[in-house]
Amino acid sequence: MGSCHPKTKGEPPDLLLAAAFVSDAQYNRNIPFKTSPEAVRLYYLYNHWIMRTATYFFIFLNLSLAVFEEPAVYPLPFLVTSVVEVLCLVVFFGRLTHFAKVTRRNVFWKDTKNICIMVAILLSLTDLAIYGVLRMYDVRSIRWSRIVRPIFLINFAESRQIRRAFRSIRNTLPEITYVFLLFMFSLLMFSLMALKLFGERNLQTAEGLPYFKNYLEIVFDLYVLVTTANSPDVMMPAFDFSSWYALFFIAFVIVNTYIFMSLFLAVVYNNYKKHLKNEIRKLAYMKHCKMIEAFNILKEEEGAQFVVREAQWKQLVKLVAPDISNSHRELLLRISDDEQKGFIDKKSFVQLADLLNIQVITLKIRSHPLGQWMPGVYKSAVSRFLRSMVRHRGFVWTYDVIILINAIFIALDEETPYISYAEWVFLALYIIEILLKVYTYEPRAFFGKNQFWNWFDTLIIFAALTATILNTTLRSTTKYNSQQILDIVFILRVLRLIRIVDSIQRFRVIMNTLINIVPTMLTFGGLTLVVYCVFAIIGMELFHGKIQFFPANSNAPHSLECGNTALKDSLFARAKYCKNNFNNFASSFIVLMELTVVNQWHDILSLFSLTPAVFFANGFANVTVQPAKLYFIAFHIVMVIIIVNIFVSFILEAFFVEYSLEKSEVETAIEQKIQELGMGVQEDELQDEHLLDNMESAEHDLEGEGGTKPQSKGLVFKIASKRYRTVDSLLQRMFEAEIPLEDEGPSVEEFLNLSPTAAIPSNVTSESAA
Amino acid sequence: MGSCHPKTKGEPPDLLLAAAFVSDAQYNRNIPFKTSPEAVRLYYLYNHWIMRTATYFFIFLNLSLAVFEEPAVYPLPFLVTSVVEVLCLVVFFGRLTHFAKVTRRNVFWKDTKNICIMVAILLSLTDLAIYGVLRMYDVRSIRWSRIVRPIFLINFAESRQIRRAFRSIRNTLPEITYVFLLFMFSLLMFSLMALKLFGERNLQTAEGLPYFKNYLEIVFDLYVLVTTANSPDVMMPAFDFSSWYALFFIAFVIVNTYIFMSLFLAVVYNNYKKHLKNEIRKLAYMKHCKMIEAFNILKEEEGAQFVVREAQWKQLVKLVAPDISNSHRELLLRISDDEQKGFIDKKSFVQLADLLNIQVITLKIRSHPLGQWMPGVYKSAVSRFLRSMVRHRGFVWTYDVIILINAIFIALDEETPYISYAEWVFLALYIIEILLKVYTYEPRAFFGKNQFWNWFDTLIIFAALTATILNTTLRSTTKYNSQQILDIVFILRVLRLIRIVDSIQRFRVIMNTLINIVPTMLTFGGLTLVVYCVFAIIGMELFHGKIQFFPANSNAPHSLECGNTALKDSLFARAKYCKNNFNNFASSFIVLMELTVVNQWHDILSLFSLTPAVFFANGFANVTVQPAKLYFIAFHIVMVIIIVNIFVSFILEAFFVEYSLEKSEVETAIEQKIQELGMGVQEDELQDEHLLDNMESAEHDLEGEGGTKPQSKGLVFKIASKRYRTVDSLLQRMFEAEIPLEDEGPSVEEFLNLSPTAAIPSNVTSESAA
Repeated sequence: MGSCHPKTKGEPPDLLLAAAFVSDAQYNRNIPFKTSPEAVRLYYLYNHWIMRTATYFFIFLNLSLAVFEEPAVYPLPFLVTSVVEVLCLVVFFGRLTHFAKVTRRNVFWKDTKNICIMVAILLSLTDLAIYGVLRMYDVRSIRWSRIVRPIFLINFAESRQIRRAFRSIRNTLPEITYVFLLFMFSLLMFSLMALKLFGERNLQTAEGLPYFKNYLEIVFDLYVLVTTANSPDVMMPAFDFSSWYALFFIAFVIVNTYIFMSLFLAVVYNNYKKHLKNEIRKLAYMKHCKMIEAFNILKEEEGAQFVVREAQWKQLVKLVAPDISNSHRELLLRISDDEQKGFIDKKSFVQLADLLNIQVITLKIRSHPLGQWMPGVYKSAVSRFLRSMVRHRGFVWTYDVIILINAIFIALDEETPYISYAEWVFLALYIIEILLKVYTYEPRAFFGKNQFWNWFDTLIIFAALTATILNTTLRSTTKYNSQQILDIVFILRVLRLIRIVDSIQRFRVIMNTLINIVPTMLTFGGLTLVVYCVFAIIGMELFHGKIQFFPANSNAPHSLECGNTALKDSLFARAKYCKNNFNNFASSFIVLMELTVVNQWHDILSLFSLTPAVFFANGFANVTVQPAKLYFIAFHIVMVIIIVNIFVSFILEAFFVEYSLEKSEVETAIEQKIQELGMGVQEDELQDEHLLDNMESAEHDLEGEGGTKPQSKGLVFKIASKRYRTVDSLLQRMFEAEIPLEDEGPSVEEFLNLSPTAAIPSNVTSESAA
Repeated sequence: MGSCHPKTKGEPPDLLLAAAFVSDAQYNRNIPFKTSPEAVRLYYLYNHWIMRTATYFFIFLNLSLAVFEEPAVYPLPFLVTSVVEVLCLVVFFGRLTHFAKVTRRNVFWKDTKNICIMVAILLSLTDLAIYGVLRMYDVRSIRWSRIVRPIFLINFAESRQIRRAFRSIRNTLPEITYVFLLFMFSLLMFSLMALKLFGERNLQTAEGLPYFKNYLEIVFDLYVLVTTANSPDVMMPAFDFSSWYALFFIAFVIVNTYIFMSLFLAVVYNNYKKHLKNEIRKLAYMKHCKMIEAFNILKEEEGAQFVVREAQWKQLVKLVAPDISNSHRELLLRISDDEQKGFIDKKSFVQLADLLNIQVITLKIRSHPLGQWMPGVYKSAVSRFLRSMVRHRGFVWTYDVIILINAIFIALDEETPYISYAEWVFLALYIIEILLKVYTYEPRAFFGKNQFWNWFDTLIIFAALTATILNTTLRSTTKYNSQQILDIVFILRVLRLIRIVDSIQRFRVIMNTLINIVPTMLTFGGLTLVVYCVFAIIGMELFHGKIQFFPANSNAPHSLECGNTALKDSLFARAKYCKNNFNNFASSFIVLMELTVVNQWHDILSLFSLTPAVFFANGFANVTVQPAKLYFIAFHIVMVIIIVNIFVSFILEAFFVEYSLEKSEVETAIEQKIQELGMGVQEDELQDEHLLDNMESAEHDLEGEGGTKPQSKGLVFKIASKRYRTVDSLLQRMFEAEIPLEDEGPSVEEFLNLSPTAAIPSNVTSESAA
């Protein structure tokens, strides 16, 4: 007993401490905090949402400084940015100090995260000081510490997901490296063959340049061909010379583009999955340990076993989840204390974290407010007919047709007066729809927390209404069309059309999968942000100011060659790519985005090359030195070969998980218990129907059955629809079955010290089986 | 008993019939042949390798007619091609008649494959006749029946793998369609937004054309952006106008390129896997049934059970596998008749098909022939030293270094005399290596069937030697460098370098995976061939002669605009893409290959567009009508979205299978039996070492242990290395565990009539469990 966290064994039972453990288990936080009352209180403060939000705010403020620092999108004086940066660093230091007070000293100093943050703070301050001093003496130097900033995003305890993704990448690297070396070997071999086959033919590219003469250039050209960016240009001279040479390129593309790139995906996917499973298994084990910890604090003897008394349990739940309703808490108690014995045993107690994680919607079965205020009118025959009409399938179909007609009107020319009037008609129709629905359904249920599409519809339509009115007012008073408002109106109008997707069952399933993925996709957003930041800052130092953008009607000298005579007549300039530059943070991001998409990033060494593509690596390589190509290749390897593949792996895995749950209808024990108690609405019933229809029918059922169900005091519970669960929690549920319920096994400390790659030691399973 | 194939129950035991069943089980053939002695004899003829090879020969001859028919690569008179075609059709008809004689009538006429072939033959003949008659009257018509030809490749019984791939695609289609519709919806929505946002800005592309004005053009442009082919050109005008508009394109790329394209892969992969599992399970079940069928024919009563006598078993194996050695057959007998009782029981008998499928290498432990002929010289101290040197790791390393130096020499200029002499030195070194190895190792073992790399090395080096000598002779006698021979020499020289990969363990694992995949990759080759043939033939009818290619120094009119004035100044012509045309079968294939690679296939509507890319869809769309774009979009959907994704799924799955076998070391019961009998060389021992070294050490072991092993009459068995197993057989082995060994369950007929999507009926498992 208690081997999970032996340090707290001797402590007196403390509700606050137990609540901290339960809360950590619920949110999968793994911070080994001190168990003294003051430390626990500090720990509560540390986890307060205001503190966490503030930390994120300062992290993003610090990252966004790059927008205001030279080279700036919106220039601010150096003094302002440096004061803000110092402020951020102070906040980070404060947060770290707070963390140090919460955890034990030896744990704190062993954690590389904390060391990283401290070093980053020191480096940033040093660099800032040096740069400031040099600036006073008018010496220009490089703000090299700026690439350290993403470290804060990665290493603060809140960014668990991003760290996990980085660990995943780190673990994949060795395997990737072998495939990459083999791929490079293949590339070098093919290049050698190309050199021998085409090098002495004196062929010319479409631009009249020598073709496949220089080995390194061949390697680069063929590397670009792997990304398909210069296909088929790179083949044409050889193909024109002899059709048989096309076979060389076909073999090359099959081997390198199709087989090796798939192999990269396979390796990344395989490792990602393996790693994810380990991580999730570890998380579930830690959660279990923390719950046992909490149990050990609160336990009292009851007959032969230790239990937690009902009163204490209620206090605990109030502490952990202060915002859930009394009826919800009663439900949880009924589930935990199945036989109403007045206490909760260990096994049920451990489930509490999962119970709290399941979003239970309390559907209050209450009649429509209008029905209470004006029963005569609301229950009249006309009103009843109206309501049954709105509930009819035909109502949804009618509005789907209206949306389609609206789509056609949007596509038509705006200038015709009839069409701009039609827009008002459509707006009116949509508002009538919402009003009718609110009239028919209970408004509080209609705007319930989980009614995503209702919120979506209503917000979009009211925003469109506001913007349209604003725009019309502006136009009639000032004769001026505000471009920003118009743009927003256009986008809102089109977004409205998305609604139609939700009417079709199969589309809804796919959409739900996509919506489920969104939270975890933010992790990849974070990952991408880190990589982009680092590459953007390096890119700005390397390529800043090399290429200038001039507006179309500018008459500045060299405006046609992007302000750089080296680019005269180049395709980079001819394709009007001058705005693709590294002159500020925003532009750098867009260039990096374009590089991620891969097309058009290759060789413009030949300035007259017709391949417009071309210019990225070479628009820039032209104006600096050739090795700048390495920057672009490095970015390609990191971003496209590794991160995009992990992203694809993630989508594949998420889809498979969703898909398997879709088919096998895994219902957890907890969900079943709600059903057993007769207080649930079977979720499956909701599958084919609109949620609103079901709520209605549930209401009718209850009205019909009267008081037959003992605890239906006008309310009913429903597990929140799958669409609101995160993929993480789904994955955790999948692997949870493999975690033993006994509390034997390694302690939390041992577990935390396990390297992320190490699987659960085999004795965990064997011991629990014994 | 015998429910698998009840029709044969009453037949007398017939060795030939039993052998036919066993052979079918071994090769997974599922032809419900008649069991009368004449039919069985005909069936043997039907399965004879000459007959099968001839069928394939005529199928490919028929397909390759497209090369010789107008528009021809190598024109032949119409009479010749039509005679050949009629010949092919006659052969196909003959093969079909043969098949009809082998199977039962009702089975034959129920099989869509046969109907398809008959219809295809009829259509081809009709079309040929009509075309021939019209031609006599000088009326030009279309040879529309040519797109029917791939049907022969798909529908002959031998092309099981290709049919399976097509079934896989057909089963995936419904799921794909939903995702595709959602994707199209997203595309149309984004296009609508783009129209509203950019349509009225009067923006211009880099070529001065109106930007995003026409809805259909926007849809096409954005579809092309999904394939990334026109990124970032399509974005630049809007981006130049306002940086914020880049957000629109970023959102578009994230949603459509990254998320939807991954979703396509996920759907294809998921369905592919599901379907594959069903197919393999079905195959394994059928194999089991056929073996039981064979057992029932040969069984005799022995005590309480039915068995097959040893003598009959031996005759059966001789019939089924006439080319295996006596010792190998003895080994199989020892495995099947474990306790040497003189008969084989049902369970062991059923394993025979698997036993025969395992490639067992008989390593004859015999001393080197030189050792027998000249023992004095061969066993002298010098000779011993030489041999131990060759066996030393350093010998391999030395040659790896030599190969690297050779690589550098290849890259250097050929014209320097020293370097061309060096080539002779390297050739000599390689030949010495091979001679030394043959001197050291037993030559028959060195050139064993499974010594892939030894064969590879030797062949490459002797081919290089021959070609180099031939080239030198030609040069010295006729002063003329034969380009073809030189090309081959270059390629051979570079191929030699591949050997270095095999020296590094991790690379060898990856290479083995790739080599394992090759056989199944041929299936995708067949699939691609079918799709390419159909699209090439349609493409030739649509676009033939629209674009002409002229050699560089041609002075034909319009040679610069590909012989078509509509292409004047277009990028298609400027990028010298004239040879990318549909003028003959070979060119069409290359254009389709370029379309598969996806880059550069989009909008050149604007003839002055700088995007060179561009021209495919539009080079052709220009010179015909706009809807020709549909041809290219259709090809993209079929080839890139479906077939390439299935190919990627296949590589992923193959990699995972290889990987899991790599780790979990699944050894089948059969392999273990060989080990138990003490006649095997443990394969794992071979993992880290060179195969040759191991053969040596195995020899030494046996020499050392003397006669301790009872049956080591100078030979030892070894399961062929994993690298020579096909992925198919690996998959089958994985799913085999789920197949019950009892012969209850649905009959073969029931099973054959199951639709490919239908899973095994659940009663199969439940009954067997009972």
